This record gives sequence, C-alpha cells and structure tokens, in this order.
Amino acid sequence: MLMEKMISSADEGQTCSPLAGPGSGPHNRGAVGFVLVHAGAGYHSESKAKEYKHVCKRACLRAVDRLRAGALAVEAVTAALVELEDSPFTNAGTGSNLNLSGEIECDASIMDGKSLHYGAVGALSGIKNPVLVARRLLSEAQKGKLSAGRIPPCLTPTRIKPIIKISVAEFSLSAYRRNKRKMEVAERVEAECYQTKRARQAAENVSLKCRTCGIVSPPLDCGENRSACLDTVGAIVVDQEGNVAAAVSSGGLAMKHPGRVGQAAHYGCGCWAQNAGNAVPYSTAVSTSGCGEHLVRTMLARECSTAMQAEDAHQALLEAMQTKFISSPFLVTEDCVLGGVIVLRCCKCVEDQTSQEDAHTLVEFLWSHTTESMCIGYMSAQDSKAKTHISRLPPGTVAGHSLAIEGGVCRLGNKTI
Amino acid sequence: MLMEKMISSADEGQTCSPLAGPGSGPHNRGAVGFVLVHAGAGYHSESKAKEYKHVCKRACLRAVDRLRAGALAVEAVTAALVELEDSPFTNAGTGSNLNLSGEIECDASIMDGKSLHYGAVGALSGIKNPVLVARRLLSEAQKGKLSAGRIPPCLTPTRIKPIIKISVAEFSLSAYRRNKRKMEVAERVEAECYQTKRARQAAENVSLKCRTCGIVSPPLDCGENRSACLDTVGAIVVDQEGNVAAAVSSGGLAMKHPGRVGQAAHYGCGCWAQNAGNAVPYSTAVSTSGCGEHLVRTMLARECSTAMQAEDAHQALLEAMQTKFISSPFLVTEDCVLGGVIVLRCCKCVEDQTSQEDAHTLVEFLWSHTTESMCIGYMSAQDSKAKTHISRLPPGTVAGHSLAIEGGVCRLGNKTI
Repeated sequence: MLMEKMISSADEGQTCSPLAGPGSGPHNRGAVGFVLVHAGAGYHSESKAKEYKHVCKRACLRAVDRLRAGALAVEAVTAALVELEDSPFTNAGTGSNLNLSGEIECDASIMDGKSLHYGAVGALSGIKNPVLVARRLLSEAQKGKLSAGRIPPCLTPTRIKPIIKISVAEFSLSAYRRNKRKMEVAERVEAECYQTKRARQAAENVSLKCRTCGIVSPPLDCGENRSACLDTVGAIVVDQEGNVAAAVSSGGLAMKHPGRVGQAAHYGCGCWAQNAGNAVPYSTAVSTSGCGEHLVRTMLARECSTAMQAEDAHQALLEAMQTKFISSPFLVTEDCVLGGVIVLRCCKCVEDQTSQEDAHTLVEFLWSHTTESMCIGYMSAQDSKAKTHISRLPPGTVAGHSLAIEGGVCRLGNKTI
Repeated sequence: MLMEKMISSADEGQTCSPLAGPGSGPHNRGAVGFVLVHAGAGYHSESKAKEYKHVCKRACLRAVDRLRAGALAVEAVTAALVELEDSPFTNAGTGSNLNLSGEIECDASIMDGKSLHYGAVGALSGIKNPVLVARRLLSEAQKGKLSAGRIPPCLTPTRIKPIIKISVAEFSLSAYRRNKRKMEVAERVEAECYQTKRARQAAENVSLKCRTCGIVSPPLDCGENRSACLDTVGAIVVDQEGNVAAAVSSGGLAMKHPGRVGQAAHYGCGCWAQNAGNAVPYSTAVSTSGCGEHLVRTMLARECSTAMQAEDAHQALLEAMQTKFISSPFLVTEDCVLGGVIVLRCCKCVEDQTSQEDAHTLVEFLWSHTTESMCIGYMSAQDSKAKTHISRLPPGTVAGHSLAIEGGVCRLGNKTI
C-alpha cells in the first residue's frame, strides 16, 4: 500500500519551495549552500515533537554557519552531525542506546562527494562525537598513503583511545535496566516454550514474538525522552561550489550485541555522496535511518543515490523505496521493513544560453520513510531560519509496509558558482 | 591496456571445459556441485607455486567432499575456507599478516545465495577460523529475531571471546620485525623531508613513496613463504540444488592499523552470492582479493555479480573489471588498482522441451585480476581431482593498470536437480 503527499510547509516565498519542477521557486541569488538533516526514522510522539524539531533546527544552523563562512560541504555536514550527536534526545553520541553490556557503542560515517573518499567508525566506545573520528579517517584517506606505502583505513572500530569520557544519559540507563528485565522474561518464555510447549498460555499478556512459538513479550524501550529504538541521525549538504557530502551517526539498537556494527558504519548503507561527473549527471547525497540490518542488506543509501540519476527524482525515490526496500528480495523473510532516507540531488542550470549570468544550482530534496514518523529539518544559506517537520505515515497505513514521501526544491544563486 | 587469454589447462574431457558457450562440454550426469577457490591475488613466485596450488587443491576437495555428502553450498564453501585459513602460506587464519601492534586481526564473511543472508567478522583476534564465526552469525540471522525482538547482527568485530589461542607463524613475526624497521626508516625520511627539505638526497636507495616529497623507502614484506601482502583467500560454490554461496577470509594488510576492517568484512565488497529469481536470471557468486580499500570503495563483489547478469559472462566481467575497477571514478587518485575476483554464474537449461530428463545446470566460471598473479583451483563433484592454476598478467603488461581474465564452463547433470 502506498501513500504519498507533498510538503506544504515550505511554500511561503523563501528559497525552498515545494517540489514542482525546475524554475518554479523565486530566483534568490547568493544562496551559498543547502542542508537537510534528520533526527531519525522511528516513532516521534506529539509530546516530544518540539524537542526533535529544535535539535534539527540547531543542526541546520550549525551547517549554514559553516557554509556562509565559505566552508566546503564536508565541513558543514560535520558541524550538523556534532550538534545532532550532542543532543540527549537522539540515539547518537551522548544520547545513545546502551548495548547488552550496558555500554555505549557508536557507529558513524561520512562521505565526501568531491573526492569520493569515505571514513567510518564502528562499535566505538568512549568518544563524545563519533562523527569527528570518521571525519579524521576521511581526511587521512584524502592525504594518500601512510608511511612505507600503507593504505589508510576506511573503517576502524573500537580500538581508538577515548578522547573524552562521556556519561550515559540517565534515561538510557533506566531504559537499559527495564529492557534487561524484559529480555529475561522473553528468554524465560522462549526456554519454557522450547522445553514444555506450554508457554503459550503462560505469556498471554506480553507483546514481542518468540521465534520458536510466536508468543510475544513486552517491547524494548529507549527511555522516556526517546522516540523509538531506531532513530539515528544524519545530514546531507551541498556547498557553494556544488559539492555534496553526507554523514550519519548512530548509537545502534538498544540491547544490541557488544561489537555489533550497524548501518551507520557500513559503506553504501548509512550515507552516500557523489558529485556529478563520469557519466553521472546529478550530484547526489543520501543519509539513512532505521533498522540497521534492513538498511545494510539493501545497501539503501547507494541504491537511492543510483535511483536519483533518473529524470523524475520524486518518482525515482518512490520506486526505489518500494522495489529496493519494502519489496527487496533481500528482506522477503522480514515481517516489516523499517527505514527512512533523506536525499538531495543537484545540477547546474543555465537559463540564458548566451550568458553565464543566469547559471544557478537547482537542488531537489526529498525524504521518505516506512516507519511511523521521521523528523527532518532543512535550510538554505539564504534563509533566516530552518524549517522542521515531523513526517508521518498517512492514517490507516501500516509501518513497515507503507511509505511516506515528501520534498521540495531549492535554487542556489550564481553569486559564487 | 588490456590482455586476456583463455585457460588451456581444463580441456581434457573432464566435466570442466574451456569457456565455449552452452552445451559444449561432455554431458556428465550426476555431478552434484562445483567449487572455485582462490588463494589470493598478489604475487606468487614460481618457487612457491607448488605450495599455493596444493592448498587450493585441498580446499576444493574439502568442499567437494561436503557436496557429495549432500551438503548445501554454504556448508561446502565453509569447508573450503577452513582449509585455506589453516594453511601457513595464505594471509588468512593461521598465516595472517601481523598488524602495527604485532597482533593477528582477521576479517571474514560468508553469504548464502538462497536466503540472501550474510555474516561477517572484522578485526577479530584469537580465533583460528574466522569463517566459522561468520558462518555462525549467518546461521543466527537465518533463524530470525533474537529474544525480545532484537535483530541478529550482520557484522561483529573484535568482541568475541577467543575460542582457541592461535600461535603466530614464525615468518609472520620476522616479517613484522623487518617491516617495523622499514616503517621507522620511512617515517624518519618523511619527518626529515618535512622539517629540512633535504631528505631527497638522504634516501636515494629506498623504494616506497613519501607522501610529502615523493621519496621512496623499502617495500614492506610478508615473510619468506608469503607471496605478497594482499593475498586473502576465498571460495564460491554451487550445490546440487543450484544454490550458490560465497566466502572470503583475510589477515589484512601487513602493518595495518589495529582495528582496521578490510574488504573481507564489508558487505558487497568481499563476497556476494545470489540465487536466480526476482528478475535476476542467473545465480551468481563472487569472492574478491587484493587491496582492501580498492575493493571496498568499488564494492567489487556486488558490481561483478550485477555485471554477470548480462548475456556474455566473459565480456561482462571484462567490462566490469575495466570500468568499475581499473577506471573507477572512486579510484582516480590511486596510482595503481590492485585486485582480483573469482566469479561463477549458473542457470538451469532444458535441452529437450518435451522432457525434464535433459535438464542440467550450466556453470560458467571466471577469474580476473590486475595483480601480477592470482592462484586459483576448481573442481566439480564429478571430477576425481581439482585443477589448479596460477594466472599471470601477460608479459609486458603492468600490474594495477592491466588485467588478465580466464575461465571455463562446467555442466552439472540432472540427477538431483
């Protein structure tokens, strides 16, 4: 079942306009970049919506500050991620879910569309801002070989000395204690079920499925301030030169196995950025969120990037989310497929062929999710403030089987391109 | 520059015949599977060729033993990998290169083309057979959710309790000591170069490039019994039901950063297996070897799998190796691109439309590499022994810029399919 709608909150004569094809927006010269962020695909309660929107707004501002100062896309996207990681409300950095051992272990990655270089960390402990370590690995990769011809690593997990001791958020800790108890119940149910086959009667009022008998036990939670267990954070940026960059950061699933590396550290799965060139007509950037294994097995970030090379961006993303994600042959055994993406693509356009004066960069941006909701924010460097939005599945549709898709268009002026 | 040739060592009336299109081989009914293994793309000296061929032969036998006993592809491919990991000559398991701290850290992954599930370990210490841990993760993924609805991990690095204490091969240790000295020289050269700019004269007789001034220092080595620093191992299998599986295992680059995760643990980069179905006409399996970062950034395993859906397998692999690897936009800054792949694809064919009697599975298998050489072995369950071969770049061509491509065809009978 498919539902889709167009966003209506971005149509009041600012730089960003609803998706309505090239040339529809006002002609704002001098906008030197654009950022789109997400605070996760999952479930965002109305009561906490304000907090999520607020952190998205701040993240957009951080990125735009850097863009206005002339920074490249990769720097701006890092600044947005640091802000997102520093919030206790997001499942990244400081606010991360705890693993089975009660520890924080983070994944993060970043990709630069210009050099096509990539840096990632997986299952990293004791670091306040995992994205900064990923960024450092990206810089090392861009410098070329290490001493004696050794090649710098793309992905390095766990073995980095803690830079700062981060303290676990109190609600992450209480959620951990509650989850631990729930797992003990669930495991007891499974064990009983296996041994005595009488468990079905014994566990009627719990709500997560036992894989032996189908009996359900209580769902895990992520603390009272948290929307759901899936919500990673991410951002995508295009700078004044038309370079794109993407990043993603995650504390991973609550009660995950220690050492588990999720989609945020997997190449092609958590984020993707690729400048135009080499038979790729559009520059594209993607950041994902959701159930890590679903995003990894479908390589969703790269699939969406590839799809966005088609003529109609909206239609292409819609098809990609349906055929490469919800109906992916890699996920046929899953009872629901949970994830969300933010994407942008841009190309340089010249309206008057006789003059370069009218050259501008057209940015089409979209988000789509199969989760209950997804919190996003976006801003062009021309805007005075960021727009934020909690996108929700249309009423009556089912998370994991349906999708929402929305987006807009932003036109960057020719002042600096 | 491109060079290619057809293999001539597989043409003596056995099940496996040179690549000459469908229907060319003898009709051997009852062959219940096929295996192709590699002991790495790198440089294999003539003097050590015998050892490499021998380990490939044993690995093929292990897989075929399992196939004859009715095992599925994923079991047979695991058996081949265990044999390859147990050899002190390969850079995997027991014979692994040491990292910068003088420790063994292994990557391995396995993919089942039937369920499309995947298991991987990265930077794993103290385990004799990393592929068995990857295999275990694959099995867990196939079972479905863990207690309380948690999703099993695809990739888990480092945090697994050592099963067996493995002892470091003596030549890995002496190579480590030599490399450590070379790196110290190289780093001193770089430091001097940076500080005094007089280093060019001071280091004329060394041979690896300093990234500041271009001065070269002595190349790292991997011990007297080792072919080169790149050679991981891998295998691909098709079983009697036509299911495919692929696996790969690696000790990683010599003197790598501790915690670095290479291509053998990256989804889509180290191995790929996908049964036919869902608009994919051929079942394909791929395993890669070579410079980890080159294989990761090009997602070579998955790219080759996608390419193999084209009509002409040989031409498709040739084009993929040229456009998606040697000339990849992701590797434009690399001065040479080093890697190798083994691939197979198969489809069920019915010669007589009126009878299912003549149904058989046609397996086309190929290997291609841009390294000096690549050691491979292959065997059908019908064969009495494995064939092994050290494929080399044609004389006069340059590693990292040219490629070799060879292959064959094998026909599996209809006894059990």
